[in-house]
Amino acid sequence: MEHPEASLCSAEGVNKFEETALFQDYHGMPEFREAVAKFMGKVRGGRVKFDPDRIVMSGGATGAHEMVAFCLADPGEAFLVPTPYYPGFDRDLRWRTGVELVPVVCESSNNFKITRAALEAAYEKAKEANLRVKGLLITNPSNPLGTILDRDTLKGIVKFINEKNIHLIGDEIYAATVFMEPEFVSISEIIEEVECNRDLIHIVYSLSKDMGFPGFRVGIVYSYNDAVVSCARKMSSFGLVSSQTQHLIATMLSDDDFVDSFIVESKEQLFKRHKYFTLSLSQVGIGSLKSNAGLFIWMDLRKLLKEKTFDAEMDLWRVIINEVKLNVSPGSSFHCDEPGWFRVCFANMDDNTMEVALLRITTFMHKHNEAMVPRKLCRRASLKLSLSRRRDDFMSQNMMSPHSPIPQSPLVRART
Amino acid sequence: MEHPEASLCSAEGVNKFEETALFQDYHGMPEFREAVAKFMGKVRGGRVKFDPDRIVMSGGATGAHEMVAFCLADPGEAFLVPTPYYPGFDRDLRWRTGVELVPVVCESSNNFKITRAALEAAYEKAKEANLRVKGLLITNPSNPLGTILDRDTLKGIVKFINEKNIHLIGDEIYAATVFMEPEFVSISEIIEEVECNRDLIHIVYSLSKDMGFPGFRVGIVYSYNDAVVSCARKMSSFGLVSSQTQHLIATMLSDDDFVDSFIVESKEQLFKRHKYFTLSLSQVGIGSLKSNAGLFIWMDLRKLLKEKTFDAEMDLWRVIINEVKLNVSPGSSFHCDEPGWFRVCFANMDDNTMEVALLRITTFMHKHNEAMVPRKLCRRASLKLSLSRRRDDFMSQNMMSPHSPIPQSPLVRART
Repeated sequence: MEHPEASLCSAEGVNKFEETALFQDYHGMPEFREAVAKFMGKVRGGRVKFDPDRIVMSGGATGAHEMVAFCLADPGEAFLVPTPYYPGFDRDLRWRTGVELVPVVCESSNNFKITRAALEAAYEKAKEANLRVKGLLITNPSNPLGTILDRDTLKGIVKFINEKNIHLIGDEIYAATVFMEPEFVSISEIIEEVECNRDLIHIVYSLSKDMGFPGFRVGIVYSYNDAVVSCARKMSSFGLVSSQTQHLIATMLSDDDFVDSFIVESKEQLFKRHKYFTLSLSQVGIGSLKSNAGLFIWMDLRKLLKEKTFDAEMDLWRVIINEVKLNVSPGSSFHCDEPGWFRVCFANMDDNTMEVALLRITTFMHKHNEAMVPRKLCRRASLKLSLSRRRDDFMSQNMMSPHSPIPQSPLVRART
Repeated sequence: MEHPEASLCSAEGVNKFEETALFQDYHGMPEFREAVAKFMGKVRGGRVKFDPDRIVMSGGATGAHEMVAFCLADPGEAFLVPTPYYPGFDRDLRWRTGVELVPVVCESSNNFKITRAALEAAYEKAKEANLRVKGLLITNPSNPLGTILDRDTLKGIVKFINEKNIHLIGDEIYAATVFMEPEFVSISEIIEEVECNRDLIHIVYSLSKDMGFPGFRVGIVYSYNDAVVSCARKMSSFGLVSSQTQHLIATMLSDDDFVDSFIVESKEQLFKRHKYFTLSLSQVGIGSLKSNAGLFIWMDLRKLLKEKTFDAEMDLWRVIINEVKLNVSPGSSFHCDEPGWFRVCFANMDDNTMEVALLRITTFMHKHNEAMVPRKLCRRASLKLSLSRRRDDFMSQNMMSPHSPIPQSPLVRART
């Protein structure tokens, strides 16, 4: 409201309508690129500067990832991707490019750290499968883990990709969501600290998460490689950012006071939510991976599995979806190597919805915990609940006996 | 200005900011799809209705064409495309898909009509080259010709693709630019008149030309094939229309009075420009293909060529670009089969610019015509001009003697 000139339909902005509607230079509006470059620097604590001339537009991070894959690899060539990773990569990077993804297996035993050994193992595995590895794709902060990569890990990664002479794609679309110490370290900082062939370094960015604008489809490829910038810019004609939106974003991000306070307030809100959410879960015995970023927590339900298998994980997921009625994502969909982990988004709901969600989880866990006590006690507890909360009781039975002949929701029924 | 609610930064519209910024359903906003479907019907004279549920968004017509190619063909498979055709197709349809384009050779002798014989010849040629033909792509109204396809031709085309069981992609992005009789006939009308497997029919649309919004990146794939709608919708995640722009367009196109008068006024302005431009050209002896649509004329400069070759066409083009200083496009870039044709956009400039352009063309043609008279007369004319218009005189010399050792612009120099 303080920037009516950001609109093309206001008295203050309408004189820009024609110019903006006709704008189709695939370099993007200079003021848009400058504003985004500046914002990217701010989000990284002002410790690094970005060159507006290296900003290439794309249709969201989705389009950005595909564009980078098209630029760097031919069909049948491969990227290494540490697990667990965002399932959309299987679509965005592979579907139309013909590129393959090779998981770098990370494990809970060391908090899913990306180790040199894991990188080497994945690289060797790809070679054995006759796949030519063209790059490594890291997501920092991580979706789904909500963790960030520490400086040493990042240096090790840069060393690895330089030794192998493969590209490094740093997906940093959650850069502004780091709400707790330690602070975020961007790959753009690391390459100023260690020896590196910068032609190998590419960043995928977006305003969908950091500004909360998924609808505006502002994706960015920032490459240190001139040839990639040039090629990606030509490709960007398939998914340019609407000039109307470029105009809005340029105005919005040029307001330093707004941007500075937005970044701070956004982090504060995420911090509060995260704290409340993880505390509430821990009170009913649910742990999660220690995290300080992103919109998710990586919930540890390993002890709720009937057995340590992905089938058991899917059984539990169906119960959570259909009976507890919470939309969480099973770790297997993120290529997690170990069953029992679930991604929960803690940020995409209002306070009331969160309370309902937490109530459902705690109710579910209370029942589970009751069911875990000796049979006699359990029966009594069930009896008591069945008087007032018949439906929940049915849920509880269901949860404990997924193979029962009692009719269930179609999804669950299909499995039993 | 009459629709402040179309903005997200106005008092009337700001309450929609959050909802719009967060919107990311790849089906698109229902009101956007409804408005576009209605607009598509209006542009076709209300003779046909479009189903909002078949409207798939894409990043401009550029993204739409690539999306259709990805949906319909595997790498190495081919589409037939009548010539002359928009050179962007060579990039949009082929670059990342690996699809091949096979020209359907159309000739000036019958006003570049798409004949059955030409279609069969192209189909056979593809077969001989071991290319599997998956579809035929027509542009109606035509870019670059500015002509439309008549009902009989369209019926013949539908018959052809049904017999061959190949897809038909109708690029109708200039549908609203038909400014003179006969009226535009859409492929969507033809398939209601003749027997046709509708699963083979797909329309590419856009608001870039018909509404003059290239910056807003509103591309549309409208397919009668459910599988293509479903697949394209998933693919549209690489190039969705900004929700801010969807919101604006939905509001704008819902104003029937505005849309109706816009369509009428746009056609009127195109008609006037086209008439004035073609008349001015004819007065200096330049003919053009008879046309009634689009933003271009197909200028006939065959008689200005030194010889009937594409080299001579390029020589003439360099003179026009570098010396006459007009941005026209040589027919060879549209895969035209015959040298000497040039595309001129008559619609993308203000009246003053047009007058300058016409002055340049007429000056150029006067000199050319002078140069064509017997040598003695020519010398005298050159002498006279050299006193007051030295540079133009130099141009004229240049035009007549491209192989002279006199220094020229770099482009021309490279050739001489």
